[in-house]
Amino acid sequence: MTRDEFLQAAIACAESLGDHHRRTPKQRLQEIADSPYAEHARDHYGSGGFVTVLEAEIAELFGKEAAVVMPSGTMAQQIALRIWADRAGNRTVAFHPTCHLEKHEHMAYRELHGLEAILLGESDRLFTLAELEATKSYSSLLVELPQREIGGQLPSWEELSAILSLAHKSGAKTHVDGARLWECQPFYAKPYREIVADFDSVYVSFYKVLGGLPGAALAGPADFIAEARIWMRRHGGNLANMFPIAISAKAGMDSKLPRISKYVAKASEVARLLNALPGIRTVPVEPPTNMMHVYFDASAAAMMDAVGDVAAREKCLLFSWFAEAPSGCRTELWIGDAGLDLSTERVGKLLSQMRIVP
Amino acid sequence: MTRDEFLQAAIACAESLGDHHRRTPKQRLQEIADSPYAEHARDHYGSGGFVTVLEAEIAELFGKEAAVVMPSGTMAQQIALRIWADRAGNRTVAFHPTCHLEKHEHMAYRELHGLEAILLGESDRLFTLAELEATKSYSSLLVELPQREIGGQLPSWEELSAILSLAHKSGAKTHVDGARLWECQPFYAKPYREIVADFDSVYVSFYKVLGGLPGAALAGPADFIAEARIWMRRHGGNLANMFPIAISAKAGMDSKLPRISKYVAKASEVARLLNALPGIRTVPVEPPTNMMHVYFDASAAAMMDAVGDVAAREKCLLFSWFAEAPSGCRTELWIGDAGLDLSTERVGKLLSQMRIVP
Repeated sequence: MTRDEFLQAAIACAESLGDHHRRTPKQRLQEIADSPYAEHARDHYGSGGFVTVLEAEIAELFGKEAAVVMPSGTMAQQIALRIWADRAGNRTVAFHPTCHLEKHEHMAYRELHGLEAILLGESDRLFTLAELEATKSYSSLLVELPQREIGGQLPSWEELSAILSLAHKSGAKTHVDGARLWECQPFYAKPYREIVADFDSVYVSFYKVLGGLPGAALAGPADFIAEARIWMRRHGGNLANMFPIAISAKAGMDSKLPRISKYVAKASEVARLLNALPGIRTVPVEPPTNMMHVYFDASAAAMMDAVGDVAAREKCLLFSWFAEAPSGCRTELWIGDAGLDLSTERVGKLLSQMRIVP
Repeated sequence: MTRDEFLQAAIACAESLGDHHRRTPKQRLQEIADSPYAEHARDHYGSGGFVTVLEAEIAELFGKEAAVVMPSGTMAQQIALRIWADRAGNRTVAFHPTCHLEKHEHMAYRELHGLEAILLGESDRLFTLAELEATKSYSSLLVELPQREIGGQLPSWEELSAILSLAHKSGAKTHVDGARLWECQPFYAKPYREIVADFDSVYVSFYKVLGGLPGAALAGPADFIAEARIWMRRHGGNLANMFPIAISAKAGMDSKLPRISKYVAKASEVARLLNALPGIRTVPVEPPTNMMHVYFDASAAAMMDAVGDVAAREKCLLFSWFAEAPSGCRTELWIGDAGLDLSTERVGKLLSQMRIVP
C-alpha cells in the first residue's frame, strides 16, 4: 500500500482509535458561532468581552494572579522564559532536550530572544533531580507536563516537588509547559491549581485535547502578565480581536475537561491490549495520561499495509502515521472522543486483525 | 456628557458615518461558518486546504512569486524587514516616523530583531524624495500606502516611482506596508499588481476595510516567503490551523473589494461637507482614499456633547472618539458600508445639527 493509498483508506474511515472525531472547518466554525460565549461583546485587542472573562477564569483555575490569552504556545513560552531571564539578568534557561523550544521553533529562543539553553537529561527519559542538581545557574526551569516526545511521561509528585523546590532554592523561576497539562489531572489526582502551585508561570493550550481552534493562555503574577502583554504585541500576537480563540477555548473546556479521566482510563486499557501483542510495545508501558507512543517491530511500510487493510475493511483507523524508528517504526496515539466511542472489545478485535508482515 | 454617556449613546445608534455596520462576534463567526470557503479541507499548520488556495491567489493578485498567510501585520512586517536586513548584512531600515513599527509595536524591531531605524521626514507629512536622497545606507525602505497616521495620504505615482527607484539604486529592498493598501487602488487607478510592482515585498491586512477576522498576508519572491515561514514559526504565528484567517479574508475580499471605489467617492463627498463647516477641517483636505483625519476647533468634551446629542436624537453616530490636539481635538474617519448607506444629503443634515460649544 502506498502512502497515498493509506491516506485514502484513512480518510474513508468513519471511526478512529486516536484523536477526537474528525470535523470539517465548517463544523468547527459553526460550533463556535453556536456557542453562548459568542453572545458576549467583542474585545478590542484582547481587552474586554469574553476574552477578559476567560482570562479571569484561567487565572482562578490555576491559582495565579492573572492570565493572558495568546495565539500560540510557541509565543507564550518564549515570552515567559524571556521575562524571567531579563529579570534575573541571566540568559540561560534549562529544559529537556525534547522541549518544544529546542525541537520545533527553529531556535527562536536564541534567534529572537538571545537565550541560551541547558539541556537536562537524555532524550528518551525524564530528567532527574540529580541531573538538575549538577546544573549550573539558570534563570528559569521549564518542565513539560506530561512530556510529549517521550509518550507523555510524568514525574511522580514527590520528584516534581523536589525538582521545583531545588530550582527555587537556586534562585530560578519555574515554568510549566502545559501543552497537554489538562491530561495529567487524573495522575496527580489534585485540582489544577494545586498541580501548578509551585510553578511561577503556566502555559496551557486551547486546542489538542480541548478540540478547539489554536490558542493558548499564559498565567502567572500580575506584573509578569502585564509584561507578557507587551511581548505578545511585539511578537505580533496582540490581535485586534481575540474572541474566536477565547470562545473556542471555553467551549472546549466545557465539553472535554469532564471527560479527561475517561480518556486516560481508556488509554490505559488500550496500552494493555497493545503490549499483549507480539512485536508491539507502548512508551510508557502504563501511560499516566491519555497519550502514548507505540513502537512496532516492523517497518512503516509494513504497518501502513496492516493498518490500511483494517481501515479499508472495517472503516476504523487504528493509527494515522508511522515514522521509522531504530528497530522498526513508531507512532503516537492519544485517546479522545473517537476512542471513547469504541468498546475495548472492538479495539482488541481490530488490533488482532492487523496482519503485520515485517 | 460624560465619556460613559457618550459611549452609551454611541452603542444605541443603528447607523454610523464611519466603519462598516457593527456586527456581534456571533454574526462574524456565523458569516465565516456560512462561507463556501469553509467547505475546503483543513490546513495542517498553514499547509493545504483553503490557506494554500488563498496564498496562491494573493501571490497572483500582487504579481509576486509566493505569499504566506499570517496572524498579523505586526508579525509580517518585522519578518520582512528582518530578512532583508540579514541578507544585506545591514541592520538599518528606513521608514516614516509614524510607521506602525515605530509607534505601536513596543519597539519590537529593535527588541526582537536587533534592527535600527532611520526615520524619514516629519510626522505630519509624507517624506520626500529629497529626504530619502540625503539618507545613509539602509537595507530596506518601508513605504506605507496610504499613510494612516496622517489621514491616509498617498504620494503621487511619479513621486512613489522615483522613491522606489532611488532605494533600489542604493542597493536597498523596498517593502510596502499595505495595512490599507486595498483602499488606494482608485487613486492610482492601476491593478494591484502594478501598484506594488516596484516593491520587493508586500504586506496586506485581512481585516479593517475587508471587515474580517484579524490576519494578514506577506507576498514576495519564493525564497523570501520560504524564509518568512521559518520566522513566522519563530514568532509563534504558524498556528496548527490557519483556516479561520483565510476563510474570513477571502469572504472580505469578495464582498468589500468591489465597493472600494464607492467608499473612496463617498469619503470625498463627506470631506467636502466637513471642510465647509466652520471650525472643522480634514487632513488631507481631499482624501485620496476612504479615510481622513478630522480636526475640530473645540475640545474633545465639546465634541462628545455635540456628537452625542445628535446620536441620542438621530440614532446615527457621526464620530466615535476624540483625542485632544493642539488647537482642539481630532478623530479618524473611514467610510465603509455604514457610510455608504447614508445619503450625502442626510450626512450634511446630521453634521449641521451638531451644536459645538467650544
